[in-house]
Amino acid sequence: MVAATATMSGADIRRLSRSAEFSGQTSGVAAGYVQCNIVILPRDTADHFAQFCALNPKPCPLLAVSPEPGDYRLPDLGEDIDIRRDVPRYRIWRDGIFTEQCESIEQLWQQDWVAFALGCSFSFEEALIKSGIEVRNISEQCNVPMYRTNIDCTPAGPFEGKLVVSMRPMPASNAIEAIQICGRYPRVHGAPVHFGDPTLIGITDLQQPDFGDAVSVRPEDVPVFWACGVTPQVALEAAELPVAITHEPGHMLVTDLKNEELAGPL
Amino acid sequence: MVAATATMSGADIRRLSRSAEFSGQTSGVAAGYVQCNIVILPRDTADHFAQFCALNPKPCPLLAVSPEPGDYRLPDLGEDIDIRRDVPRYRIWRDGIFTEQCESIEQLWQQDWVAFALGCSFSFEEALIKSGIEVRNISEQCNVPMYRTNIDCTPAGPFEGKLVVSMRPMPASNAIEAIQICGRYPRVHGAPVHFGDPTLIGITDLQQPDFGDAVSVRPEDVPVFWACGVTPQVALEAAELPVAITHEPGHMLVTDLKNEELAGPL
Repeated sequence: MVAATATMSGADIRRLSRSAEFSGQTSGVAAGYVQCNIVILPRDTADHFAQFCALNPKPCPLLAVSPEPGDYRLPDLGEDIDIRRDVPRYRIWRDGIFTEQCESIEQLWQQDWVAFALGCSFSFEEALIKSGIEVRNISEQCNVPMYRTNIDCTPAGPFEGKLVVSMRPMPASNAIEAIQICGRYPRVHGAPVHFGDPTLIGITDLQQPDFGDAVSVRPEDVPVFWACGVTPQVALEAAELPVAITHEPGHMLVTDLKNEELAGPL
Repeated sequence: MVAATATMSGADIRRLSRSAEFSGQTSGVAAGYVQCNIVILPRDTADHFAQFCALNPKPCPLLAVSPEPGDYRLPDLGEDIDIRRDVPRYRIWRDGIFTEQCESIEQLWQQDWVAFALGCSFSFEEALIKSGIEVRNISEQCNVPMYRTNIDCTPAGPFEGKLVVSMRPMPASNAIEAIQICGRYPRVHGAPVHFGDPTLIGITDLQQPDFGDAVSVRPEDVPVFWACGVTPQVALEAAELPVAITHEPGHMLVTDLKNEELAGPL
């Protein structure tokens, strides 16, 4: 596998994914470029999924959708995107169960499929680091820890479920700054949804995340929780669609947009 | 004493203060109008105090200063302001010690005195309440609790001392919103400086504030700490000037500016 690097562009990463030279995680690659969570569904459920995104914008900030059912381009995110091949690794879901991984869905693609691209925390992590805030999962070179909460998403048709959150521990002074920075990025999950006592949102053990990896929490740290792009995968479980596709967590679509284009005013 | 009400204007309150008909607290009066902390000093120390404000903008956000030494007007804050008479109640400090209160300093006024007007938390409390956030000291109709911390201000000449903070307890979800709202108001203390464990900033008992009144802290609350306009009074103690004047805490100068004029962009 070719090494994907921080200095490559979004188009570089997609070219490597498309030619099956790269199928790895995209954290830290193509620095500055917006990465996206991907959900692909048949047209007859796409309207309900669009509603689910609109009703739950913090976990599901919609950045782009297929121009037409069956159209595998996403021109709002990059001229040459082919959503069937440009994600480094996909998950296939059947009847709400994650059944297999693959590096291309070109052979599976259907004329009624619709792709949704949602904002991803990698964008705000870059903004935090630029402001001198340590992001623990990056310092410890692992996946961010993610947890199912006791907070219900607003349902839409068959899509429903609990909010999934990611957690980054940091001192309170950094958390105050992070809240202000992330508030400027509503299209990539925005400000955190909670900080402090994890039990208040139904999390019993920070060292046992439901997804991703546990990270160190130091005595001076406060755990800070953001709405997470894994939430739609939980909603897919509930929907039990005959078939659906997502990205493999951490293996995102890298676009031509720049993170700073997503920021609201200071 | 005439009742000062929420529906009066800043000019109304000043007229009542000037004629000695009102000498009370100004929390909740003249809703929407900016209120100010006041520090009055001899010219030979004014430059250092201006530096102290510039170096410590969170506790000492300077809104206006006398046009010239001896000039008792503050035209940037209101056309007819007479800083010798328009504050409901003053404190007189001699050799760094608070010695007496009075309702006018007209008889004391010197031709080399300079008045500083600093932003006040009343402005952001109004913004929080408008966003549906409960402000405990307002619900409980008392002064906000204030504490000396172990955080050093940056000294300037004779002015130095620890940062004083005000504390408002609230659930984490409200605190996240409050941090974003107050971040838009850097001229009235801005975003909080700390939340959570009070011992991390040198506060041992929330129920024993150094200034103001204790408020209830509920199990779901996080204490949130803002830089406080009492900080310059602590710096005055350190400076041990032969004479200085401040407002009596809670008895602020009410101006003609509106709180929303102080807000930065959303």
